[in-house]
Amino acid sequence: MTFRGKHLLGIEPLHPVEIITILDLADEYVGLNRASVKHADALTGLTQINMFFENSTRTQASFELAGMRLGADVMNMQMQASSIKKGETLIDTALTLNAMHPDLLVVRHPHSGAVDLLAQKVNCAVLNAGDGRHEHPTQALLDALTIRRSKGRLHRLNIAICGDIAHSRVARSNILLLGKMENRVRLVGPPTLIPSGAADWGVEVYDDMAKGLEGCDVVMMLRLQKERMDGGFIPSEREYYHRYGLDAGKLAHAKEDAIVMHPGPMNRGVEIDGTIADDINRSVIQEQVEMGVAVRMAAMDLLARNLRAEAA
Amino acid sequence: MTFRGKHLLGIEPLHPVEIITILDLADEYVGLNRASVKHADALTGLTQINMFFENSTRTQASFELAGMRLGADVMNMQMQASSIKKGETLIDTALTLNAMHPDLLVVRHPHSGAVDLLAQKVNCAVLNAGDGRHEHPTQALLDALTIRRSKGRLHRLNIAICGDIAHSRVARSNILLLGKMENRVRLVGPPTLIPSGAADWGVEVYDDMAKGLEGCDVVMMLRLQKERMDGGFIPSEREYYHRYGLDAGKLAHAKEDAIVMHPGPMNRGVEIDGTIADDINRSVIQEQVEMGVAVRMAAMDLLARNLRAEAA
Amino acid sequence: MTFRGKHLLGIEPLHPVEIITILDLADEYVGLNRASVKHADALTGLTQINMFFENSTRTQASFELAGMRLGADVMNMQMQASSIKKGETLIDTALTLNAMHPDLLVVRHPHSGAVDLLAQKVNCAVLNAGDGRHEHPTQALLDALTIRRSKGRLHRLNIAICGDIAHSRVARSNILLLGKMENRVRLVGPPTLIPSGAADWGVEVYDDMAKGLEGCDVVMMLRLQKERMDGGFIPSEREYYHRYGLDAGKLAHAKEDAIVMHPGPMNRGVEIDGTIADDINRSVIQEQVEMGVAVRMAAMDLLARNLRAEAA
Repeated sequence: MTFRGKHLLGIEPLHPVEIITILDLADEYVGLNRASVKHADALTGLTQINMFFENSTRTQASFELAGMRLGADVMNMQMQASSIKKGETLIDTALTLNAMHPDLLVVRHPHSGAVDLLAQKVNCAVLNAGDGRHEHPTQALLDALTIRRSKGRLHRLNIAICGDIAHSRVARSNILLLGKMENRVRLVGPPTLIPSGAADWGVEVYDDMAKGLEGCDVVMMLRLQKERMDGGFIPSEREYYHRYGLDAGKLAHAKEDAIVMHPGPMNRGVEIDGTIADDINRSVIQEQVEMGVAVRMAAMDLLARNLRAEAA
Repeated sequence: MTFRGKHLLGIEPLHPVEIITILDLADEYVGLNRASVKHADALTGLTQINMFFENSTRTQASFELAGMRLGADVMNMQMQASSIKKGETLIDTALTLNAMHPDLLVVRHPHSGAVDLLAQKVNCAVLNAGDGRHEHPTQALLDALTIRRSKGRLHRLNIAICGDIAHSRVARSNILLLGKMENRVRLVGPPTLIPSGAADWGVEVYDDMAKGLEGCDVVMMLRLQKERMDGGFIPSEREYYHRYGLDAGKLAHAKEDAIVMHPGPMNRGVEIDGTIADDINRSVIQEQVEMGVAVRMAAMDLLARNLRAEAA
Repeated sequence: MTFRGKHLLGIEPLHPVEIITILDLADEYVGLNRASVKHADALTGLTQINMFFENSTRTQASFELAGMRLGADVMNMQMQASSIKKGETLIDTALTLNAMHPDLLVVRHPHSGAVDLLAQKVNCAVLNAGDGRHEHPTQALLDALTIRRSKGRLHRLNIAICGDIAHSRVARSNILLLGKMENRVRLVGPPTLIPSGAADWGVEVYDDMAKGLEGCDVVMMLRLQKERMDGGFIPSEREYYHRYGLDAGKLAHAKEDAIVMHPGPMNRGVEIDGTIADDINRSVIQEQVEMGVAVRMAAMDLLARNLRAEAA
């Protein structure tokens, strides 16, 4: 197995072989289920700190469960209620934490690049759990694992990423990962929600769902990130659903066996019809959540191996 | 031992033998005390998630300690700060959690019936930690264990439940449990705080404390739930204490060896006189808290055995 | 080793031999570092509850890590969101917690004396994590350990404590500890921020940094506690920094090998120049954080031994 990173900051620096290494190990961790005895102590004796400067119940829970199931001591830090309020800088917070000798630091931050900056200041392994509009690598990895398990491969697929691309780090990490694995990626959404530079990313851009979904293997819907739209164009939900919400009519343009994905939490009736979200023949949305825990276990396991190898 | 449930959603579906099974096992767990080594690994390798949609420091702490002492990996989810705010439905939250494969899900929710609904959507064992005005089964079980240990039996006792019955899921679960075990239950309180249908519950109703407490073995006081009284009659605390607050004079009507209970947190000087609450010859309020941890250990242990049996 | 206390409520009741006992054991715990297997089970099977009535991310994290690394089951209680809001008294909260049988209770409270009061009501070991303006004993102990490791001794040193003495429990505990160990302590700050009775504490008082730092071995800066200054004099930050902020010019009055300390979180450019805070030849601020975990491990380990000896 080959994964050499000290941190997991984004998809951009990863080699395709590293991506496959993480997914292969994650596949082994999917087997873990309820009432089975914890079968791994990969992180026993290690300290994992979750530092979420933005609330995210599901992502934090996923990392916490992943760590606990591998035996880590997991500590959550409530950064809203923290020293940040007392005027401490991000760097001082990082240095303070570092002095407490964590082994794995999971960080979400509202500013793009904040997690990279923090990683430069600490000795432990840092995992990016989402920074601004920049990257969200474990989300892209769990999406990749879900696709690979559904489609049997992770290359030469037609994948449509639909909706609010402009505000989405999920879209960005997915575009990077799916491109590295030689898939054909299309972005579909209203021009106001497609970044102006998208044409240079090696993707096709559509503003019409029927055309964009034509012949797709995978339809990846995004959340309409109203909370990130400050000042700019805010579509009405009704209008948005009419033109870009995934319903049976639009989905009919994709391949008959196309799968439907969503990173959650969903706005039912806004970006996706509830019936499609719940259709177990098309929707893999619950599988995505399940793969999330497995991918995070794999990523932390690999980073911990590298820490140990470095220390030895 | 006989306890067949997959969930613990309320007292209503329990058979008296199941109640006794839980209490008998809880009795064994009371022995656990400080500085003794953790003697049980009944929940080792299992994941317990506490999902509190209403704050409750003491109930959440009790479940958390119960899980930790049996070796579970316990995760608390802050549901106020969660995806709920982003417009996700309760069902989506449940499905998401379920996909992370918890084994035990402890839920408190402000709406009656919400926990039952959630239990239908998940594969794991669900424990109701209080839903609206519906049920709070572990509270009734801990009260029952406290009574049984004090009185030597849990049948043919005269038990007065006093105060704000209308807003109390504690009262409702207790009435159900004590009725199943063949006790004589009386409700005592101002008519505005007694539900209109109470006469059909097989209980006696009093609006006078002296008469209601006459000859009682157990006096169970309730908290005045001001936070639940929206729009309706709100008594002045002074007037309420005068007529319904438990003081030495009113308690004199109960049997000489009657015990005094309160689910906490207490409003001293409103529903109960501080001196009586602190009288170790009458008050078993601290024992109730202690029994709470033991009863929750027992309930989770039994549910985990059923999960394992089902998986085998 | 000699440490007889049931609680760690302050520096005041400690004998110098007890202080040395804690520091000696803490020295052994500093060795713990990342990717090493947890080497101690001193607190295995014990329940540690952190009850913070004031937010303090770094202190709570330090206690939590210390407990986890020695194998304790650690539970955090969010006291802001707790029963306190429902009108429960501090004593009732204490009695409730006590009934759940914790072994170690770590408490921070905004009122001086609240932690002592609480300790009288419970059976477990109580550690004061800061109470009002009274004491913060583990901070003084971690400062002492940092000094001893840097200077090779903890006696006959000239130590200047600078800044907002009046609002600082850190200053108070440090004055007590450093005095017991026979050091010469000076307080330096604006007269409005020096308590009126300071002259009786066996310390020298200066209102001029140049004079106060003259020949010092240790310069201990304090945080300007704006949040504690209700009604009183609030200096402008610019003026404060000019006269009392530690910069290279003022530090030049101390000994050439003087170390610089700060309990954190720092207000850079207010009480300390950022360059000095980051100067690894002078600043031991990160070491203080590291020693914090070690000192808390040692204190909890010793208290747990006493609990076990008492139970045996």
